[in-house]
Amino acid sequence: MTLLSALDYASVAVFALTGALVASRAQLDIVGFIFVACLTALGGGTLRDAILNRDMVFWVADPVMLAVAGSAAVTVFFSAHLLESRYRALLWLDACALAVAVPAGVGVAMGMGSAWPIVIVMGMITGCMGGLMRDVVCNEVPLVLKQGELYVTAAFAGAVAAVVAATFGLETGIALLICAAVTVTLRAGSLALGWRLPVYRARPPRNGPRN
Amino acid sequence: MTLLSALDYASVAVFALTGALVASRAQLDIVGFIFVACLTALGGGTLRDAILNRDMVFWVADPVMLAVAGSAAVTVFFSAHLLESRYRALLWLDACALAVAVPAGVGVAMGMGSAWPIVIVMGMITGCMGGLMRDVVCNEVPLVLKQGELYVTAAFAGAVAAVVAATFGLETGIALLICAAVTVTLRAGSLALGWRLPVYRARPPRNGPRN
Amino acid sequence: MTLLSALDYASVAVFALTGALVASRAQLDIVGFIFVACLTALGGGTLRDAILNRDMVFWVADPVMLAVAGSAAVTVFFSAHLLESRYRALLWLDACALAVAVPAGVGVAMGMGSAWPIVIVMGMITGCMGGLMRDVVCNEVPLVLKQGELYVTAAFAGAVAAVVAATFGLETGIALLICAAVTVTLRAGSLALGWRLPVYRARPPRNGPRN
Repeated sequence: MTLLSALDYASVAVFALTGALVASRAQLDIVGFIFVACLTALGGGTLRDAILNRDMVFWVADPVMLAVAGSAAVTVFFSAHLLESRYRALLWLDACALAVAVPAGVGVAMGMGSAWPIVIVMGMITGCMGGLMRDVVCNEVPLVLKQGELYVTAAFAGAVAAVVAATFGLETGIALLICAAVTVTLRAGSLALGWRLPVYRARPPRNGPRN
Repeated sequence: MTLLSALDYASVAVFALTGALVASRAQLDIVGFIFVACLTALGGGTLRDAILNRDMVFWVADPVMLAVAGSAAVTVFFSAHLLESRYRALLWLDACALAVAVPAGVGVAMGMGSAWPIVIVMGMITGCMGGLMRDVVCNEVPLVLKQGELYVTAAFAGAVAAVVAATFGLETGIALLICAAVTVTLRAGSLALGWRLPVYRARPPRNGPRN
Repeated sequence: MTLLSALDYASVAVFALTGALVASRAQLDIVGFIFVACLTALGGGTLRDAILNRDMVFWVADPVMLAVAGSAAVTVFFSAHLLESRYRALLWLDACALAVAVPAGVGVAMGMGSAWPIVIVMGMITGCMGGLMRDVVCNEVPLVLKQGELYVTAAFAGAVAAVVAATFGLETGIALLICAAVTVTLRAGSLALGWRLPVYRARPPRNGPRN
């Protein structure tokens, strides 16, 4: 198994866990768990493959992915009550999933010889869009857009780091590991230490009322 | 007209009716009715065709589909006030649409020679995603995710039944009819008789507070 | 630069501005601005290209589009506080973006020799779906579905006008300009003068209670 396919499997499994945790917060049944887990785990990569026009979407080429996502969902259905805080588990699992999904997306785009802006965007899409679909469908506030938290930023920085590393001639495998490290560091720093970017605030305009 | 294209037309027409009913609940104008009807009727199949990488999305290959969806929307715009309960009509029409859309998706994937897990997923996508898009865009609680109701489960069971039937050597046409029968039975049983799966409930954890 | 690619750039830039304005209302950070701006600016065209099965999605073929959208987002981040009313600016910019995106979509479909119903739908998808994604993700009431306002209707009328013009033998460039003019006139008339279509109202049914 190559590093790239290991990343793919890990990202599917961990994102499926987060999808199932959101399903548990919405009190769905077991099929609902599997549905949300698959949407979350496969959504970002499916979008990446559709945009890159790959011959086959990754889970059509390898249906074992479906079994991985489904097993993760069933596991959560029967064990989520053992967690002390499901929301905290969700946040940290989501951070891990982001850190494997971004290099997975970057690796696919690099493998297809895409230009570097496309490589970066594919990393971000693979990392962020599955979770966004999960949150939109289940009516949660999207983690992606939580004010000031480093989420899209972490994905962006990780993808940029991979491109820079590859430009300096490092092997793809190393570049992807650097990508994962940067992504998880920024995201974990944001979760644990409150690292943030300044958010937009409407300052008093020069004339006219605040809006 | 083959059975498969009959299923496609029926699924488009009935899902368009449900989209238009949701539009009537949101008090849209006639173009809004047509828009939501098309999104609902064509969304699931479009996703299926994009993921399977078919040469042409089904309604691009056959634009008559657009006329079918549009006519259904216009009909609802001028006659929905005759219904005693629009929500009840919506639920039952949606059940019928599910029961034709799942075999339509299964049939397309079988025709392309997909592996059986992909066949099942394509049935579920074609059946469930159009209605999900309708509900997300119109800000209704997604029918797909209503607690404990058999919806995704009905689609899943129908698709599995078709695959089993085909494995036992039955003709595709028969397999698709079995698929429709299983889907509509489970969904109707859930609507009329309250058939349900148990939903997830956070049980008191062994230590620490409930979350 | 051809008219078609000028339309594409203009549509990306102006839709990105609207995305960034919505991000400012949600008080996101600068990377969130860029994310929402790209989603809005590229979403509709990406969907169009995926459905038409073009060899490459337009911004994969030309990554400068990403820089255009990103620059628009950064500009708004540092200058939105100068606006007297961000919502009013959003509405009018969105109208302009619609008026360039609809002909951009129509032009692509015409260039691929699509049938006229597909040309019309591609104009509507390119014009409406990016803004719809923006509003769904940021939890705003979709502009597309505001009761009775001419939005989808404006896109539809513009696309029909282009098809009629092309049928009467006018050059594609002229047809696209007519399309833009019709779209912006109807949308602006709706915003400034309150032009509307009648919305659906449940009339008292002949028997049974109102629903």
